[in-house]
Amino acid sequence: PNFALESQGEPLQTGAMILAKTTSKPYQSHRACRLFGVSFRLPPMGPNIVIKGRTHLNPGQCWAFADFPGRLDIALSHKANITHVSLGHITKMVSPTSSISSAPREFSVYGKKHLEDEESHLGTFLYDQDGDQLQTFKVPDENVGSYDFVTLKVNSNWGNPEYTCLYHIKVHGELA
Amino acid sequence: PNFALESQGEPLQTGAMILAKTTSKPYQSHRACRLFGVSFRLPPMGPNIVIKGRTHLNPGQCWAFADFPGRLDIALSHKANITHVSLGHITKMVSPTSSISSAPREFSVYGKKHLEDEESHLGTFLYDQDGDQLQTFKVPDENVGSYDFVTLKVNSNWGNPEYTCLYHIKVHGELA
Amino acid sequence: PNFALESQGEPLQTGAMILAKTTSKPYQSHRACRLFGVSFRLPPMGPNIVIKGRTHLNPGQCWAFADFPGRLDIALSHKANITHVSLGHITKMVSPTSSISSAPREFSVYGKKHLEDEESHLGTFLYDQDGDQLQTFKVPDENVGSYDFVTLKVNSNWGNPEYTCLYHIKVHGELA
Repeated sequence: PNFALESQGEPLQTGAMILAKTTSKPYQSHRACRLFGVSFRLPPMGPNIVIKGRTHLNPGQCWAFADFPGRLDIALSHKANITHVSLGHITKMVSPTSSISSAPREFSVYGKKHLEDEESHLGTFLYDQDGDQLQTFKVPDENVGSYDFVTLKVNSNWGNPEYTCLYHIKVHGELA
Repeated sequence: PNFALESQGEPLQTGAMILAKTTSKPYQSHRACRLFGVSFRLPPMGPNIVIKGRTHLNPGQCWAFADFPGRLDIALSHKANITHVSLGHITKMVSPTSSISSAPREFSVYGKKHLEDEESHLGTFLYDQDGDQLQTFKVPDENVGSYDFVTLKVNSNWGNPEYTCLYHIKVHGELA
Repeated sequence: PNFALESQGEPLQTGAMILAKTTSKPYQSHRACRLFGVSFRLPPMGPNIVIKGRTHLNPGQCWAFADFPGRLDIALSHKANITHVSLGHITKMVSPTSSISSAPREFSVYGKKHLEDEESHLGTFLYDQDGDQLQTFKVPDENVGSYDFVTLKVNSNWGNPEYTCLYHIKVHGELA
């Protein structure tokens, strides 16, 4: 099971939610699109796109943020013993530029039992720009514990100077 | 082909439809969600979700009903000789609680040529809680016939005392 | 990469777009749907449905046009050296009538660097009604070039006298 899924668990119940207040703001481009002489700007996608459980990722359908660390705060659908975390990004093969410089590189994951608690460090991992679309990372056994909230901090990307893109996050484990 | 698909057949033509009058009402939870001190209720999903031909099922994105038998009436997209019926539910592995007590257990399927006809019994089957996500059931040869309407009656579930969830239904056969 | 994808490339940037002015108009049925004595018409789907990168195709969820040649003009997401084109349609197995007479048969593909340029012929191909759902066609080496715009002209279908349906188009190559 994935405890970071917006639609989760029982019918009529909310699943995971993004805590918007502490989560990084979506990246706003300074460049506008010019098309046939008309210039316009697309509204940025919010972070909710990353917890929708999408299995098919289209380039550009992601949450982008500008600065490091990029921060994403999730209220899980259930309190869970968190054993693995997965991050998703389009692969180089699917990218129109054949590069994915905006993919996350080093990132850390934290857990909390209550909103006002200190964060417990679950692990720091590397998303491989030449790896699979969805990459899964194991929380070291000594860090496994039961949490209601998970925070992702993205510390670097693969070279894009303007923004980092996140397509998908999953938080795995067992119901606490 | 699946004759219980909402989008079906030719462009500009409707496909299968749910007959809302005789179909069981969606389950309304008495419990409200409490989140950060605010209590709220999600609107229940209607039965249409089960004929949308979704291949990826997310926990909670289902039609829930409260009592037995739960009844679903479908006007097929075309009159068809019905040979198989498939029911879909999330698996235990994907369920956040690792159990799927709200999955259908015993169910019966009926056909009708006209709305006002008597129902013809096509078969009574068992959805296996340890089986695949989508399980297909063969209509006994002696019951195969051509019908415009199909009724599903769910007689029991795998233990949930409050509601039963249906994620997906497919009705297979040949154009009559 | 697919340069005919509506959501493509960077976040906040548009991807491919349909040029509606020169693209064939959607087919409007003269027949209305009759259901329980009420007659109504569904609004036709626009051509944008074919560049959404859908991987799961449901019967009827397509762009239909009436006359030959049916014409689709696409502004690619990026200027690209176009090496392959893919067309998608539901298979006979999934079709409720077990036939796909409205599938494209012979079609030609053209490229342009600027909107006002002459079209360069990239190739003429045959969509096989007994083949896979998504069929990919190689542009002959001597016709490969870098283009911003691609035009599809569908010259015939597999027998439907009223309309032809297109479900999916992909334009492959390398960023120019």
